[in-house]
Amino acid sequence: MKFVCSQSDFSNNLSLVSRAVPTRPTHPILANVLMIADATKQKISLMAFDLSLGIETSFDANISEEGQTTLPAKLLNDIVSRLPEGEISLTSEKIKDDQTGLLYLKSASGKFQIKTISADEFPPLPTIENDEFIELPILTITEGLRGVLFASSSDELKQVLTGVHLKGTADNLEFAATDGHRLSVVEAIISSKTSRHEEDRIVKVKNLDEFSVTIPARALRELERIIHNNSDSKVVQLQIDDVQVIFYLGKQKLTIRKLDGDYPKYHMLIPQQFEHIISLDRKTFLNSLERVAVLTSQKNNLVKCIFNHKKQMILLSVETQDLGSAEESIEAKITGKSGDIAFNIKYLIDGLKALSTKEIKMQLNEGNKPVIFNPLGGLKMTYLVMPVQIVK
Amino acid sequence: MKFVCSQSDFSNNLSLVSRAVPTRPTHPILANVLMIADATKQKISLMAFDLSLGIETSFDANISEEGQTTLPAKLLNDIVSRLPEGEISLTSEKIKDDQTGLLYLKSASGKFQIKTISADEFPPLPTIENDEFIELPILTITEGLRGVLFASSSDELKQVLTGVHLKGTADNLEFAATDGHRLSVVEAIISSKTSRHEEDRIVKVKNLDEFSVTIPARALRELERIIHNNSDSKVVQLQIDDVQVIFYLGKQKLTIRKLDGDYPKYHMLIPQQFEHIISLDRKTFLNSLERVAVLTSQKNNLVKCIFNHKKQMILLSVETQDLGSAEESIEAKITGKSGDIAFNIKYLIDGLKALSTKEIKMQLNEGNKPVIFNPLGGLKMTYLVMPVQIVK
Repeated sequence: MKFVCSQSDFSNNLSLVSRAVPTRPTHPILANVLMIADATKQKISLMAFDLSLGIETSFDANISEEGQTTLPAKLLNDIVSRLPEGEISLTSEKIKDDQTGLLYLKSASGKFQIKTISADEFPPLPTIENDEFIELPILTITEGLRGVLFASSSDELKQVLTGVHLKGTADNLEFAATDGHRLSVVEAIISSKTSRHEEDRIVKVKNLDEFSVTIPARALRELERIIHNNSDSKVVQLQIDDVQVIFYLGKQKLTIRKLDGDYPKYHMLIPQQFEHIISLDRKTFLNSLERVAVLTSQKNNLVKCIFNHKKQMILLSVETQDLGSAEESIEAKITGKSGDIAFNIKYLIDGLKALSTKEIKMQLNEGNKPVIFNPLGGLKMTYLVMPVQIVK
Repeated sequence: MKFVCSQSDFSNNLSLVSRAVPTRPTHPILANVLMIADATKQKISLMAFDLSLGIETSFDANISEEGQTTLPAKLLNDIVSRLPEGEISLTSEKIKDDQTGLLYLKSASGKFQIKTISADEFPPLPTIENDEFIELPILTITEGLRGVLFASSSDELKQVLTGVHLKGTADNLEFAATDGHRLSVVEAIISSKTSRHEEDRIVKVKNLDEFSVTIPARALRELERIIHNNSDSKVVQLQIDDVQVIFYLGKQKLTIRKLDGDYPKYHMLIPQQFEHIISLDRKTFLNSLERVAVLTSQKNNLVKCIFNHKKQMILLSVETQDLGSAEESIEAKITGKSGDIAFNIKYLIDGLKALSTKEIKMQLNEGNKPVIFNPLGGLKMTYLVMPVQIVK
């Protein structure tokens, strides 16, 4: 393999795929990035894969000799990102009949020799046989992820709950995530459905009706990041089979292993009728919660909300034996009787950050029934939190 | 105690003294900040002390009842920094005859109750009996610290080496720090020596000739930070006795316990004659070192420098068995024969970052004699590094 490319192209694409390199690889080869030089297309492909998430990207290069090899991702990234801008030339060679070899990297300022491992050792990225694609507007994906990702569980033992559930209806795509204590659901409207040629694949738009998949939150955070750094693309294409889902975004491709198992029937959890409806300013509520949260401890992170119909106020109060106590009052439009309810303050803060409108609506019933929060206007989002019983 | 003050005054001063609060306090009271309300001066003083470093500051407030108490620094800081701008009112009261009490903090948005511990429990900050002050220009201090602080040892067992040594001569103040492997010395010129009234103390300028003290690097980093955030003051005043040194900077006061023990006679280490003199561009050298450093490992952080008199070039090379190797060439003006030398690359990088001029001079002798680096022009600074023997 022998090619010349620009330092910035190499560095940007390398740092992009490096996100799929595991920090503690179970096998040495997984710490490496696969590099393929295609002389016909005059393109370099880079690929990293942690057996659950694979990221692929490609960029133009001047290739005089094709080939493929794998290189330690972190080391290569550390070198290439520090090189001065300009052309760099790379040559790889095998040592004897060994599975290892050497990469020679030359820039204006110096030269580097890096140990390589044969591309044969690199686990093949799963492919999807069918040629049906779903095309989604970037905005649909970003709004959906922004509204639900935070609510997924970070506990690996909770399996499907570590993912985000996507479900299609006639012209909606519903995103949902829950960790068992709170649930966030976003209904994203899909405005445009067109089939188009992109790169060298024909996009056949599949009916969203049949679409239902649970995708690991970690992989979706990488998708979110790639979308964020990729402002040209307006659409994402998806390909799906029983095991994998593949996202195509311009020159980047994310191959993600789906999460097995049935996703909870979360719609059943959302109450349809409420005794109390409260609307209030989201930012004011959030700031007050963040201040009183200072007085909560790891053992006791309870905030009590007393809503006073007569005064049209909510009183937030927090008390921790060893530290002290805090109270804040905020104005609210309250219909229904006065009452009180308590929450894990972290769940409230997380949800209020994800709800993006100025005003929000909070709906609840007596007793320890689920409480729901919705934005007033804008996105169709429902955030459900289980209250905590107040010991009286 | 009862007073009203501005949120921003309280928050800024609190975060300033909080730097002296230990992260793992040996006694609960050390996690607290001492607050004194002086009705006569209409000033609030805040103080934190970890038994080695004490930081004191004061600000104006509307005091209706004087008194003193101590409060958990982190908790108070977390609350006050989150409060909206505007006036806050504070009232403290004792609970029974107990050593604990409560502070009531009220802002526009809410109220907080925080547990206090009696001010009697707070260890008194050491004072200095003599009334002799040394006045130093801020620039002298900042240049000196910037040039040497990085070279002090972070190993608490190395005692005096964890500090910076300050030594006065007729019109110089010399800063020195060493960790046993490298040494940095800055001779800061003191241009102005004037005696003046400041606040309520008379500044008698003491002769710098007798001045010699070793001060913990950690405390000096706080001094550096306070100077940086305090752009009004042009001078720092110093008071010193056998045990303590006190820095006065506007409304702030740093009380620091000196490091005991004789500081090494470092001047003896600096060679006066050299066989090789090399001058080169600092930034180019630094960038090259940072790139080849990627190929060093924790076990082997050696960089070999081959200086070629004929080509007027330095070749840097690094090799680590498992990773690979790197080479960079840089132009240099070399007098004396060609040769080679090896260093711990971290020591070179640290020193080159602290030397602030565009061009630098590197002087060395055959064998494993100390190598020194000086800026060309600007500050009078000497950075000495012990080379590492090359196994041939």
